[in-house]
Amino acid sequence: MSTLGLTAIGSTLGALTPETSAASPHATPTVNPTPPIVELEDFVYDIENGSKGWAGDGGSAKEATVEEFPVSQSIAGVSMRLKPGAFRELHWHSIAAEWAYVLEGRVRTTVITPDGTTSTDDFDTGDIWYFPKGHGHMLQCIGDKPCHFLLGFDSGHFSEFGTFSVTDWVSHISPEIMARHTGLPAAFFARLPKKEVYIGVGKIAADALPKNINPHKLTSAFAHKFRMEKDAPMQEFKGGFHKIVSSVEFPIQNSLTAVRMNIEPGCIRELHWHPNADEWQYVMSGAGKISIFGSHGRVKTMPFSKGMVSFIKQGYGHYVENDGTETLKLIVLFNSPVYQELSLTDWLAANPAQLVADHFGMSTEQASSLIDHKEGIY
Amino acid sequence: MSTLGLTAIGSTLGALTPETSAASPHATPTVNPTPPIVELEDFVYDIENGSKGWAGDGGSAKEATVEEFPVSQSIAGVSMRLKPGAFRELHWHSIAAEWAYVLEGRVRTTVITPDGTTSTDDFDTGDIWYFPKGHGHMLQCIGDKPCHFLLGFDSGHFSEFGTFSVTDWVSHISPEIMARHTGLPAAFFARLPKKEVYIGVGKIAADALPKNINPHKLTSAFAHKFRMEKDAPMQEFKGGFHKIVSSVEFPIQNSLTAVRMNIEPGCIRELHWHPNADEWQYVMSGAGKISIFGSHGRVKTMPFSKGMVSFIKQGYGHYVENDGTETLKLIVLFNSPVYQELSLTDWLAANPAQLVADHFGMSTEQASSLIDHKEGIY
Amino acid sequence: MSTLGLTAIGSTLGALTPETSAASPHATPTVNPTPPIVELEDFVYDIENGSKGWAGDGGSAKEATVEEFPVSQSIAGVSMRLKPGAFRELHWHSIAAEWAYVLEGRVRTTVITPDGTTSTDDFDTGDIWYFPKGHGHMLQCIGDKPCHFLLGFDSGHFSEFGTFSVTDWVSHISPEIMARHTGLPAAFFARLPKKEVYIGVGKIAADALPKNINPHKLTSAFAHKFRMEKDAPMQEFKGGFHKIVSSVEFPIQNSLTAVRMNIEPGCIRELHWHPNADEWQYVMSGAGKISIFGSHGRVKTMPFSKGMVSFIKQGYGHYVENDGTETLKLIVLFNSPVYQELSLTDWLAANPAQLVADHFGMSTEQASSLIDHKEGIY
Repeated sequence: MSTLGLTAIGSTLGALTPETSAASPHATPTVNPTPPIVELEDFVYDIENGSKGWAGDGGSAKEATVEEFPVSQSIAGVSMRLKPGAFRELHWHSIAAEWAYVLEGRVRTTVITPDGTTSTDDFDTGDIWYFPKGHGHMLQCIGDKPCHFLLGFDSGHFSEFGTFSVTDWVSHISPEIMARHTGLPAAFFARLPKKEVYIGVGKIAADALPKNINPHKLTSAFAHKFRMEKDAPMQEFKGGFHKIVSSVEFPIQNSLTAVRMNIEPGCIRELHWHPNADEWQYVMSGAGKISIFGSHGRVKTMPFSKGMVSFIKQGYGHYVENDGTETLKLIVLFNSPVYQELSLTDWLAANPAQLVADHFGMSTEQASSLIDHKEGIY
Repeated sequence: MSTLGLTAIGSTLGALTPETSAASPHATPTVNPTPPIVELEDFVYDIENGSKGWAGDGGSAKEATVEEFPVSQSIAGVSMRLKPGAFRELHWHSIAAEWAYVLEGRVRTTVITPDGTTSTDDFDTGDIWYFPKGHGHMLQCIGDKPCHFLLGFDSGHFSEFGTFSVTDWVSHISPEIMARHTGLPAAFFARLPKKEVYIGVGKIAADALPKNINPHKLTSAFAHKFRMEKDAPMQEFKGGFHKIVSSVEFPIQNSLTAVRMNIEPGCIRELHWHPNADEWQYVMSGAGKISIFGSHGRVKTMPFSKGMVSFIKQGYGHYVENDGTETLKLIVLFNSPVYQELSLTDWLAANPAQLVADHFGMSTEQASSLIDHKEGIY
Repeated sequence: MSTLGLTAIGSTLGALTPETSAASPHATPTVNPTPPIVELEDFVYDIENGSKGWAGDGGSAKEATVEEFPVSQSIAGVSMRLKPGAFRELHWHSIAAEWAYVLEGRVRTTVITPDGTTSTDDFDTGDIWYFPKGHGHMLQCIGDKPCHFLLGFDSGHFSEFGTFSVTDWVSHISPEIMARHTGLPAAFFARLPKKEVYIGVGKIAADALPKNINPHKLTSAFAHKFRMEKDAPMQEFKGGFHKIVSSVEFPIQNSLTAVRMNIEPGCIRELHWHPNADEWQYVMSGAGKISIFGSHGRVKTMPFSKGMVSFIKQGYGHYVENDGTETLKLIVLFNSPVYQELSLTDWLAANPAQLVADHFGMSTEQASSLIDHKEGIY
């Protein structure tokens, strides 16, 4: 399966470099047997329509984990909707941190940290949150309109036996133990259904931040909220923009980088790759196609549109084209707190013209005339 | 196996929240097929009685590795006893660091570090040591009484092909090579049994620290010894205590945190979890039961008593109850140099009363009256 | 498979310690069933003659990846030869960093980094380079003589679907997309062979550093080049030398340590192990034998000579003997940026004489007379 990662190279060199060749006839190229080529996996999944998901009186949730979307080993996502007053109950994730972007409406969260401090925050559309692995938290729709948010997790396996809900725990241990922990009578716990609430319905919370049962807890020294649309630095291109939020801008987000990207109709996010991270994308609106390069001549292009997610492995070359009529809006996650990219155009221009000419059988004049900088989106 | 980590939720919401519900009738809850539930593994093992172990003239050893105790992938343990003058021979572990707590008697150790410095230390009952992965070391019973200590390793796989003893090596290479390395005649090595000593018998060492063959070696800049019972900060609770030794207190111990815990009869180590580490416990004395929560309604309770070990995976909820008549004394290891815990009681109280009420179908008055702080052990 | 890592110990203690034994007759040693012993794998591979490799008009390459050399999971190597003017085309590795040592001739490299800076460097025989994972780079023979260099990668799996070449990518995507990225007509790209160049032939480059297509790129803040033979600190021994280049000397080389070692005829690199890293060796010239100790009485010795590679797992004891008539010259890589070693002789001497005597059944006088320091190579 190896032999220099080559599939079928052979005697192509003369053909490629007829003018510049200092070709020596002495070697007939020899190559080990061609390794079997494994096709590139599907890398787009329709999170909104791919599975029935969960739905109840308080809201609904659809997910893309390794079960639904096997290529995405390092990142999973959930699209969750809550009705006014409803809440995703108190829970934690044993093997993943939780990130989110508010797509619509308003959300209130509470979280507790291992140093005993807490944070209660209200999120508007376009804000993001981050809760480190294992920290207990809750999500609640506030205001009188429903909310919709995209959750991202830094493990594709986060869901299976990795999500711990407080009602699931409390209802499965002895009422006497719970009585000791709460001061309430054991009889109260004896009649709890032995089930997880998951998404519950509740009263619409007041707009003012509520007082906690214990009002003396200190606030966490780390902000769990970042106003991505409002406060992220904007990087404008001819054909769209980038807003990058790494751990520099949002320190607690120490396992991921988040990007909001717009690509205008007819424009392209140029050929590039990320040397340090896998990439996961969610389409907020619009449609386009994404093309990836996985070595060994393996290039695969798939269309995607609103409500779909895509996944590109670390180091794979790729580009995105908006071939529709609407702005393509993406929410992007990388599984590294540091953002890095390399652009093909920029790279070629960082080499001598003669050398690039020799690669493609072009003249040095052609090589010298190449676009010599990255455009980002254009 | 996924679908939001849910097993069988369905239409429980109305039942749970009859009074507070803003229930909307429009959605019949729909759930993907229930994933098969994998039972929680056994998480208690009797290290003292579970296997024959090793026994010789100089002492004995019993172990709990992934062979004997499969759930414990990240930590292994050995209960070792040495007679006066006996020694666990010079050896190293290629894939694990070694930690120990002296249960009885006195122990002398020697260790060499990659910078060529050394350390010879004498340990009393209640002292701990730590030797980083791969550093050569030796353990010797000193004084005229036998000693007993608990060894912990930061890999459950430490033993199998991971333990390298000096007699095993020296006896299997050519006598000529050994002659060159020692200055002794090759004939001496030619008659060595091709076997590992493991635990050897020797003269009772003098109390004074002995001179090494090379008396000029410098002492390691890192202390390999910490007087846990004497010097660890004591955290007292109504029903017992905690003594936590992380890498802050004992810097060389950079892959583990150690805790000595006492739980008095009738008391409980409260409901909590550790977001950053697996937990491994050894019962020094007493008896009790331990209950773990592994999501998906999986709660499992097992009794344990003197000489047994238990293991709780990272992020799993759990509590320990002393239902006996004797103090339950535990030695605990975590596979992180940083100690973190989250308490259920403390967490609930860091939320608004209305929200907690909605979770359990209690009144806001009941929620407001909840115990609002952690007790630790009570 | 475990039981204290013991194979067949039993009652060897008396035999080993007749004079010093305080032998107590009360215990018949008992041992759990002997675990099945897995033989040590082959740890030498002939990279130059083991496979056909790749050969073309511009040069050739032979490799040792996990396909050819399964024991070497953490490090792979390639021996590459380029003719004057030939180049290993622009490419990157998605899962590995690239390190190299120039064995013969001169090489020019270009590299681009994620911050958009670049570096063009010329290498003489004895110089090394390092390109971090995913950074785009190119290698070109300069001058009128062919060159030969050894490449090392920090993953044994680097090759299979991990090497991405620019011609492979460009020739497999639509000509229209390439036209947009370059400014050249789509027709140019339509006639490119759908093949990877891998090693191309080109004009012999001028000695002066060439101007890049974009002459305004800034130079990387990290040096990618280190003059190993000229500038590495020399550690001289009776029987050879060491030149160690860790990340201290060559900061960008942050996943590997490199060592150049000479062992004179009849001399030995003494018994030692590395607690923190696997070791990979390439024989530049000469011949010898290498012996490794893998616990459980498993010692295996294999000859190696010019053009072969060997691999020693982290923590395995080993030594190298030059039993030939020529200087044995080695290039060595460790998969850690920090260099560490422990020597058997040095370790024994860091213990009391009585204790060492008890291990081997020697007198304390014999133990006191042991060589008491490491010799390195002697």
